[in-house]
Amino acid sequence: MALLSEFELIKKYFDRPARGAALSIGDDAALLRPNAGMELAVSTDLLLEGRHFRAGSDARKLGHKALAVNLSDMAAMGAAPRWATLALALPAADEAWLEGFARGFFALAGRFGVELIGGDTTRGPAGGPLSICITILGEVPEGLALYRAGALPGDDIWVSGALGGAALGLAQPGDAAASQRLDEPEPRLELGERLRGIASAAIDVSDGFAQDLGHILDRSGVGAVVEYARLPVFPGADARQVLAGGDDYELVFTARQARRTEIEALSRELKLALARVGSIQKAESGLQVLDAERKAMAIARGFDHFAP
Amino acid sequence: MALLSEFELIKKYFDRPARGAALSIGDDAALLRPNAGMELAVSTDLLLEGRHFRAGSDARKLGHKALAVNLSDMAAMGAAPRWATLALALPAADEAWLEGFARGFFALAGRFGVELIGGDTTRGPAGGPLSICITILGEVPEGLALYRAGALPGDDIWVSGALGGAALGLAQPGDAAASQRLDEPEPRLELGERLRGIASAAIDVSDGFAQDLGHILDRSGVGAVVEYARLPVFPGADARQVLAGGDDYELVFTARQARRTEIEALSRELKLALARVGSIQKAESGLQVLDAERKAMAIARGFDHFAP
Repeated sequence: MALLSEFELIKKYFDRPARGAALSIGDDAALLRPNAGMELAVSTDLLLEGRHFRAGSDARKLGHKALAVNLSDMAAMGAAPRWATLALALPAADEAWLEGFARGFFALAGRFGVELIGGDTTRGPAGGPLSICITILGEVPEGLALYRAGALPGDDIWVSGALGGAALGLAQPGDAAASQRLDEPEPRLELGERLRGIASAAIDVSDGFAQDLGHILDRSGVGAVVEYARLPVFPGADARQVLAGGDDYELVFTARQARRTEIEALSRELKLALARVGSIQKAESGLQVLDAERKAMAIARGFDHFAP
Repeated sequence: MALLSEFELIKKYFDRPARGAALSIGDDAALLRPNAGMELAVSTDLLLEGRHFRAGSDARKLGHKALAVNLSDMAAMGAAPRWATLALALPAADEAWLEGFARGFFALAGRFGVELIGGDTTRGPAGGPLSICITILGEVPEGLALYRAGALPGDDIWVSGALGGAALGLAQPGDAAASQRLDEPEPRLELGERLRGIASAAIDVSDGFAQDLGHILDRSGVGAVVEYARLPVFPGADARQVLAGGDDYELVFTARQARRTEIEALSRELKLALARVGSIQKAESGLQVLDAERKAMAIARGFDHFAP
């Protein structure tokens, strides 16, 4: 484990040319030139060892996941990600770890044209948790962003991909497919951009389907009925994992019924399953998930970092 | 110590109306509308308990300092700060702490018109360090940002305020004036904005005068001679604290000699001492700090978080 200085570390692993930025890593701030007519979408996430990922996690996968979680926020807004900043607190400056982390981070960033424009590395206290703070900046044409508010009674509720895989992977690390869902989630960026002007509301599944759909309901002032049998279940996941398991990073969105054909065509074009799982109701309904006999199921709450 | 849920905590202490944002806390991302003709300056800093601040630090002061450190990056770019995101990892959700932190943060934010547009709170492991990650976004008219590059041989070197106070405050907590410099630094935002078109290069003093001036020299491809006797010394600070003490958040900048009168007038107008402390040389000179007998002084290096 060689120790490089902070400046050497940043330069070696993270200083890459950023063509979309007027000025990049190495000054007091990055300078960006957002495109005219676009709104800037900005989101920050902090990932903490022992809380959001296991100690000893594979560095490359962690580099992927830390960025993917943030890109997923852009997908949920219908925004195209452009830039990211990265702050790391490391208990030790382990070069092998940094090399792996940078590899996972930049592989995903490169796929979506995201540039790392700044950051900060700090040696955390020995034995303390590794922490990763990413701010993502994206662009969306004025007025076309997808909000949590906007769902109306009668709208369909849709879910991309499959639910419960990440929670299953957490419970059963030996399940390779489920573990990959947990460790290397795929942000639904193409879908998010294509849903501009189609979806009436959208969110990504980070805290669990029921809780995240609940945010749409709260913000839109509506209720919902979901049929469990229509939910896209990751193979092997149980109802709790499907409804309350977080970390899937699928999109949950609502749309007028008139958009069904369009959405089904989009699903085929993107080769991404989009399941119509229920419908928006008036607020009084709250959130009901019905089982095969149309009885309301108990809904476990999603993960709340601060819950006692 | 009452425990609120994560969502309640965010709402209670951090959800304030942000008029400059199209959409604020409570969606997947904030949406911003940068002004036309402006470049966006973006910077991220991670502050870690035990590394950047003492365990048990006063929460209000910490709220001030965490934001001040980031605002100082905007000052060094000549940018006007507009928005911030805040991510916190807390070992426990202590309401009194959050109340104090928010008070310090918003008092400073309000003075400079900075809006909190998003964030993330996470309960860190018990006994683990408190960590604070802030991303600051500001605007600067196209082409007028202050860079670290740009200093030319013959340029004057200037320093605002006084140096060494924060390091003195760290060494002698009983020194109230010095402790205030450490705990509640004042970002030189007005100065930074007014130096647009005047300074040839600029940086803020976070790692120590010699090290931060060194960054200007590296980026500009030049050397420098500084006269120690001309440096603005915080009362009681020694040479090591003045040259290598970090955390002062003064601005170090360079300017053509022809700008002297203008800079002196600016100092009077802003009621902020601006000392002309040396001159830029060719690269071969390196960085020399001369004592009263014009002998080169040994320069201690600034603080490097990763140095062995």
